[in-house]
Amino acid sequence: MQLGMIGLGRMGANIVRRLMRDGHEAVVYDVNADAVATLAAEGATGSESIGDLVGRLQTPRVVWLMVPAGLTGSIVDQVAPHLEAGDILIDGGNSNYRDDVRRAAALADQGIRFMDIGTSGGVFGLERGYCLMVGGPDDAYRTIEPILATLAPGAGEIERTPGRTGELAPEERGYLHTGPSGSGHFVKMVHNGIEYGIMAALAEGLNILHNADAGIRSGEHSAEVAPLEEPEYYQFDIDTAKVSELWRRGSVISSWLLDLSAAALHANPTLDGLAGRVSDSGEGRWTVKAAVDVGVPAPVLAASLFERFASRDEDHFANQVLSAMRLQFGGHQELPTGDVLEAGGSPS
Amino acid sequence: MQLGMIGLGRMGANIVRRLMRDGHEAVVYDVNADAVATLAAEGATGSESIGDLVGRLQTPRVVWLMVPAGLTGSIVDQVAPHLEAGDILIDGGNSNYRDDVRRAAALADQGIRFMDIGTSGGVFGLERGYCLMVGGPDDAYRTIEPILATLAPGAGEIERTPGRTGELAPEERGYLHTGPSGSGHFVKMVHNGIEYGIMAALAEGLNILHNADAGIRSGEHSAEVAPLEEPEYYQFDIDTAKVSELWRRGSVISSWLLDLSAAALHANPTLDGLAGRVSDSGEGRWTVKAAVDVGVPAPVLAASLFERFASRDEDHFANQVLSAMRLQFGGHQELPTGDVLEAGGSPS
Amino acid sequence: MQLGMIGLGRMGANIVRRLMRDGHEAVVYDVNADAVATLAAEGATGSESIGDLVGRLQTPRVVWLMVPAGLTGSIVDQVAPHLEAGDILIDGGNSNYRDDVRRAAALADQGIRFMDIGTSGGVFGLERGYCLMVGGPDDAYRTIEPILATLAPGAGEIERTPGRTGELAPEERGYLHTGPSGSGHFVKMVHNGIEYGIMAALAEGLNILHNADAGIRSGEHSAEVAPLEEPEYYQFDIDTAKVSELWRRGSVISSWLLDLSAAALHANPTLDGLAGRVSDSGEGRWTVKAAVDVGVPAPVLAASLFERFASRDEDHFANQVLSAMRLQFGGHQELPTGDVLEAGGSPS
Amino acid sequence: MQLGMIGLGRMGANIVRRLMRDGHEAVVYDVNADAVATLAAEGATGSESIGDLVGRLQTPRVVWLMVPAGLTGSIVDQVAPHLEAGDILIDGGNSNYRDDVRRAAALADQGIRFMDIGTSGGVFGLERGYCLMVGGPDDAYRTIEPILATLAPGAGEIERTPGRTGELAPEERGYLHTGPSGSGHFVKMVHNGIEYGIMAALAEGLNILHNADAGIRSGEHSAEVAPLEEPEYYQFDIDTAKVSELWRRGSVISSWLLDLSAAALHANPTLDGLAGRVSDSGEGRWTVKAAVDVGVPAPVLAASLFERFASRDEDHFANQVLSAMRLQFGGHQELPTGDVLEAGGSPS
Repeated sequence: MQLGMIGLGRMGANIVRRLMRDGHEAVVYDVNADAVATLAAEGATGSESIGDLVGRLQTPRVVWLMVPAGLTGSIVDQVAPHLEAGDILIDGGNSNYRDDVRRAAALADQGIRFMDIGTSGGVFGLERGYCLMVGGPDDAYRTIEPILATLAPGAGEIERTPGRTGELAPEERGYLHTGPSGSGHFVKMVHNGIEYGIMAALAEGLNILHNADAGIRSGEHSAEVAPLEEPEYYQFDIDTAKVSELWRRGSVISSWLLDLSAAALHANPTLDGLAGRVSDSGEGRWTVKAAVDVGVPAPVLAASLFERFASRDEDHFANQVLSAMRLQFGGHQELPTGDVLEAGGSPS
Repeated sequence: MQLGMIGLGRMGANIVRRLMRDGHEAVVYDVNADAVATLAAEGATGSESIGDLVGRLQTPRVVWLMVPAGLTGSIVDQVAPHLEAGDILIDGGNSNYRDDVRRAAALADQGIRFMDIGTSGGVFGLERGYCLMVGGPDDAYRTIEPILATLAPGAGEIERTPGRTGELAPEERGYLHTGPSGSGHFVKMVHNGIEYGIMAALAEGLNILHNADAGIRSGEHSAEVAPLEEPEYYQFDIDTAKVSELWRRGSVISSWLLDLSAAALHANPTLDGLAGRVSDSGEGRWTVKAAVDVGVPAPVLAASLFERFASRDEDHFANQVLSAMRLQFGGHQELPTGDVLEAGGSPS
Repeated sequence: MQLGMIGLGRMGANIVRRLMRDGHEAVVYDVNADAVATLAAEGATGSESIGDLVGRLQTPRVVWLMVPAGLTGSIVDQVAPHLEAGDILIDGGNSNYRDDVRRAAALADQGIRFMDIGTSGGVFGLERGYCLMVGGPDDAYRTIEPILATLAPGAGEIERTPGRTGELAPEERGYLHTGPSGSGHFVKMVHNGIEYGIMAALAEGLNILHNADAGIRSGEHSAEVAPLEEPEYYQFDIDTAKVSELWRRGSVISSWLLDLSAAALHANPTLDGLAGRVSDSGEGRWTVKAAVDVGVPAPVLAASLFERFASRDEDHFANQVLSAMRLQFGGHQELPTGDVLEAGGSPS
Repeated sequence: MQLGMIGLGRMGANIVRRLMRDGHEAVVYDVNADAVATLAAEGATGSESIGDLVGRLQTPRVVWLMVPAGLTGSIVDQVAPHLEAGDILIDGGNSNYRDDVRRAAALADQGIRFMDIGTSGGVFGLERGYCLMVGGPDDAYRTIEPILATLAPGAGEIERTPGRTGELAPEERGYLHTGPSGSGHFVKMVHNGIEYGIMAALAEGLNILHNADAGIRSGEHSAEVAPLEEPEYYQFDIDTAKVSELWRRGSVISSWLLDLSAAALHANPTLDGLAGRVSDSGEGRWTVKAAVDVGVPAPVLAASLFERFASRDEDHFANQVLSAMRLQFGGHQELPTGDVLEAGGSPS
């Protein structure tokens, strides 16, 4: 079928490519004319403006936006006036699902069917396919299902879940209609929240392995920390690159994120050159806020988010407050110019 | 090569089977004579006692213990007197690595080479192979490597880590010599700590999805909790069985634990009949204690452990203390016989 | 000076009483005529409607709302039309500071000066005074300062902070102009977030003391949990009522919340009759969401909130998921009708 | 009564002073002869060796050790041979209660009554008194009670807990016999664990206040973090020194640790010069390990401990692992020489 794609960054361009490979037709637009030209050279129909793109689509039109989340609102506002009742407008970016809920309601007044598609897969998606979480009206979902089927990874070589028989369900082929507008990005949001948690579990565990030689190094930190109590039990020099490779085979924690860890540690076993200041995108934050809203505990997901904040020193003032209190314990009214640690030695 | 196996529970018996399938020879013993007879019928050499088993092995002997962690110490004490210098004694169970460190030192005085092998794979190991984390002396490791190679999953269809070339390293075939005695169980311990974290990340995320309909159900808990502030954003009825199936394909969080979640939710989408009282074995606890000992943060691993404790109501007295403080806010000197919630309404 | 009070629940009525004791004049209104009559009998001027109340006030009027947070918006809408430019409208309830920001802007268009006053002190406030966190315009703050000075506890017998000299600052007397509209409730919100954290710290610690006899009770939970490893170190039968009383004197953790704990445990050492289902009001939730918004780590505050959720079994589905995964480890395709614990015994 | 004190650091010397002020008699020893001379000049009996000190005491002797925890074992070994059956040996330092349990058993064979006294109060103890948690045999406790009564703060001006009547119990005067040997330090350990949690709750809350101006500063961190979504709600410039002073009066969270925070922030509102690398002593660690051992959740206490570890960059390797995984998402096989943040922009 035919799709209009607005936004030809890596994700948008590769989605178009994967569609065309499977015989779909694409009309494309980007503010960057070179990006349009590149895809036109690969078989897409280029366009010179949003209006131009819309004009080249058959009705009911299907327009997919793949733009940074911060721009989505503005692009939707530019596209909507060109559309008519029955057209489908898809937000495939990393929007907050709350924006989808509002946008879907506003566009429904115009008869436009708005869909939100959470997309996981990153740069590997072109070859492997994208995992698609699709929110929006039932009829719109049925209309675009051929596109979804192409973009999704398909069943692949993944072992079928015991008890599942007969024809493959959509979720077994890598796409799912998750419910009304907003639900696609909601599910994607939680997916990323889980991703943070799994990443943190792996990172914390590898850090423990990395420090399993604390008994050999003992004495180093003596002024600052409680001394290691039983150094005889921390005499191991563990190769975390080899261990993460090992765990990929037959272990309970085998996972794609472990694969990535193994690859990263093989390429750079000491992780030299990485500052360890870990960014976060919105989804991890929204997940924690959603958990708070609905009142379910999410200590692991929250801890993994907070660890990222702390990696960027956002805990600095809090830590200063702790140091300041500890100085007060010691009865020092003056603040130290240099070493804060000595006062730390005053037990409470 | 030849192996003596003591302990023919599911794990021990399947290890023997996997070895025999690959042409190794096994002498087996268990206090349960039926278990011995079953394996003898499958080609193993049965034995009637520990001494008998040891007597049937060629030197240097290789004896593998696969017994509950609580019994390991006692069985080691029974086996050791039968062994002689140069023999290899393997603990393949779930021992605390600290016990290995002590046992290895004690047995070394006798010239016995003690090895600890952390084994992941569970009931699937017979077919898929076991992921093996091996601690102990270098020479002993080299001696038993043929056994390890058979038990491990091998390279299988797992994509090779980018940058790895040439002959497959042991860790790419599913076994690894992690270092001196204790290091095998240490690595396995951290593996299980990570497992707790990953499981919790998935469970918390699925719980948020499960409660994405809070806006539909709103009003239910009104006396007890803060009211849901924006119910319009929690109107989703998410099918967690389908979502977990979906995520198996192309998503960042695809993992064996996700496979298990999908299987469990497909078989029983509402999880009826599960009390949700979650056990924990020692490894998750030891991992947190190791993190504390070496002074590295492990908030995710700790939170996942504490969630299990709380699932069994081990937080009960703490929660009573909180309720009691809240009653004090309200100025009630008498305790309620029934409803503790009303007092909760007194803001601080 | 003169104040109009709308909302004569315990907090509102006691604020009026404390003001009148110090010579201020109050006009009062509540939907409950009895509440009005009671305060009228104590010297306040009763009124029969919001309009009536406003009509009895001199300009610039000062109207204080002390109503449940859920009603504040509606009451503000009822009061505002009766006010005129220059009047002051105070929200003394537990509103979300975000509502204050919006309301202040809307009312400013009418020339009404909106103030938000976070109030801590509960039922003890009448005698001890209220700790007041005041957001709103500077001139309005100066106008109502005599009221604030009366309501606040004053310097009392609290030791002066070292380095503070001269006349007492407002914050030393128990009230503070925290900044523009919304800042009062923002500071109160964080106050309550901290309160959750302190309460949880005390509750967790007391729970550890409560279980210091685990080595005496060992064996009880054997099917479900890892066995206690060194029971000889958990042979203490600690009296938590006495310990919390003790800590009130000279210890680093002496605090009002500890006082409440000591009182509660003295009255009911076993806390019998308390279900331990702990409510939460909005502030703890908003605090965590604010931390997430501004990107600062708040693992302790979040954990204390999540513990409350878990105390009400909001972790149930997550725990069921964990149990379900663990059953899958065991290779059981069928779900158990009864005991989920046996499968828990299958190590990973 | 008469006491022998070994160890004349600030704590030991002040304990001696407080005892002498109340008419008790002290024999003192320290490896630092000047410390001995100083106290001798204040009225104590000096001694030149441990043996000399013991020789100057009447039987049954009471010897108090106030030495760093790391030295306690060695000093006990030096003192014990000089003692005889019936003598009392007190460890007033910060020992691990497990050492007490072992030492008490060993010394009991000699008839020596070993006591462990957890002491809170720090440098303020001389004037305010010490909060004393006393473990050991009943008869020994009764023998030394006059000393305990002198050292403890007494009832002071602290309001009596409602429901307590009649003669003041020991815990109301600031000392408590908590149970057999080890229980004193066990209770002190949990006290310090709680202290960590309360400190962290205050520090996290103050950090949120400190960042309540994030909407004014927005844009600063744009490359690294999710953009602040609703900057209009974070426009507050909160004075944390004033707020912490305010909360001392009438608020629910008033506490000694808040007093210290207020003092520290008054003296140095920006906390300039504090590096925010927060030390930890053993007690916080032991508390978490005890919680893990007995199987009770302690997420707040653990989080507060882990925050201290992270303040010292002990999370560094974990954070590098996270960055490394995120780079892998982006499909970069080479590692960056400089900026790791760009890759962070690649959504998953």
